[in-house]
Amino acid sequence: MVEEAKLLGTWGNPLNGRIEIALKLKGIQYKYIEEDLSNKSALLLKYNPVHKKIPVFVHNGKSVAESLVILEYIDETWKDHPILPKHPYDRAMARFWAKFVDKKILQTLIKTRGAKDEELPKIIEEAGEQMKILENQLKGKEFFGGETIGYLDIVAFSVAYWSQVLIQVFGVEFLPEEKFPIVYKWIGRLLDIDVIKSWVPPREKHLAHIKGHIEDARAASK
Amino acid sequence: MVEEAKLLGTWGNPLNGRIEIALKLKGIQYKYIEEDLSNKSALLLKYNPVHKKIPVFVHNGKSVAESLVILEYIDETWKDHPILPKHPYDRAMARFWAKFVDKKILQTLIKTRGAKDEELPKIIEEAGEQMKILENQLKGKEFFGGETIGYLDIVAFSVAYWSQVLIQVFGVEFLPEEKFPIVYKWIGRLLDIDVIKSWVPPREKHLAHIKGHIEDARAASK
Repeated sequence: MVEEAKLLGTWGNPLNGRIEIALKLKGIQYKYIEEDLSNKSALLLKYNPVHKKIPVFVHNGKSVAESLVILEYIDETWKDHPILPKHPYDRAMARFWAKFVDKKILQTLIKTRGAKDEELPKIIEEAGEQMKILENQLKGKEFFGGETIGYLDIVAFSVAYWSQVLIQVFGVEFLPEEKFPIVYKWIGRLLDIDVIKSWVPPREKHLAHIKGHIEDARAASK
Repeated sequence: MVEEAKLLGTWGNPLNGRIEIALKLKGIQYKYIEEDLSNKSALLLKYNPVHKKIPVFVHNGKSVAESLVILEYIDETWKDHPILPKHPYDRAMARFWAKFVDKKILQTLIKTRGAKDEELPKIIEEAGEQMKILENQLKGKEFFGGETIGYLDIVAFSVAYWSQVLIQVFGVEFLPEEKFPIVYKWIGRLLDIDVIKSWVPPREKHLAHIKGHIEDARAASK
């Protein structure tokens, strides 16, 4: 049987970015399918009828949704270049902090989208406090995964990505070197990895894309 | 080295119930430590400084928090009587639906705590719609795990538990047999398993306990 892997995502979205990075690290061929969330495709409704959200990974006709669940599926299906650590305790820590990124840091950062200018500093401060907690986990390491990138690096990459967005769109430096020296160096290392470098969207196109999103969110919150 | 396993929880809480059930299924000896969340212990703050919540599992001095993360840790550490399915796709489905239970169904049910009487029917209806989606996953099976209980049964047990609470406290039948025939039978089967039967708190004591919680929540939402 010829293996068939498909990924439904939206352009520049760091959640499907997670899956693409994992697939590329493992050298798995896949077909990327761009979704239009304002006009959801029959494919998306078929493969993720519960949440109707991206990313959705389809492997030999069977679908998996939710980025953290997909990452584990990929790691268990293609065992070369493991992304989760080996030892159960290290695996538990990677999962715990991945949830912290999704449930805390990203939930805080996403509030910037519909926020008024005067609300931004408080949101940035809150996300910064959460980021400080995460930074502690990086102490003495090149990557969360140790000497190479792993599951938590791939997950926390979304935060690095948001920090770029905040600079580009609002001119706000979320993770300045003087306050987050360890995370700052980590982002530099991440962006230097070919698989990640090739995923990051071109700056100008990305800026226009994000600005559109922000305007929509602000209009919706009025 | 003598293995030492400790669990920090609160009485009658279905989230630490998940961990106790998994440990008992695997025959692992552990020490249960009751926490008072209105006066958090130094132990809790030491072992879960990030969220300061229960359950926390401490194994040979190292702690793991978040019930779903703990369940995976236990399953990877003690491999006998596996609770997660074997095949990567089945594992992904178990994880996907466990998240659905936690992020959707339990989040809806928890709203009953601070709700006014007139708000209850709408909350119960919403949770019922979500429960219908989950019920589909049980079709043709004894348990979510197949012929025996597994990870998703342990996780979804919280919903069965809530349905008992809703009957006892509000007299509301959340999962009546005529509307949820498959789930209804599943709850019956669950409550017939020794490990679960021995965990379920005695009815009268539990009722008084829950009523205290509800009064606190209602007072706080006024």
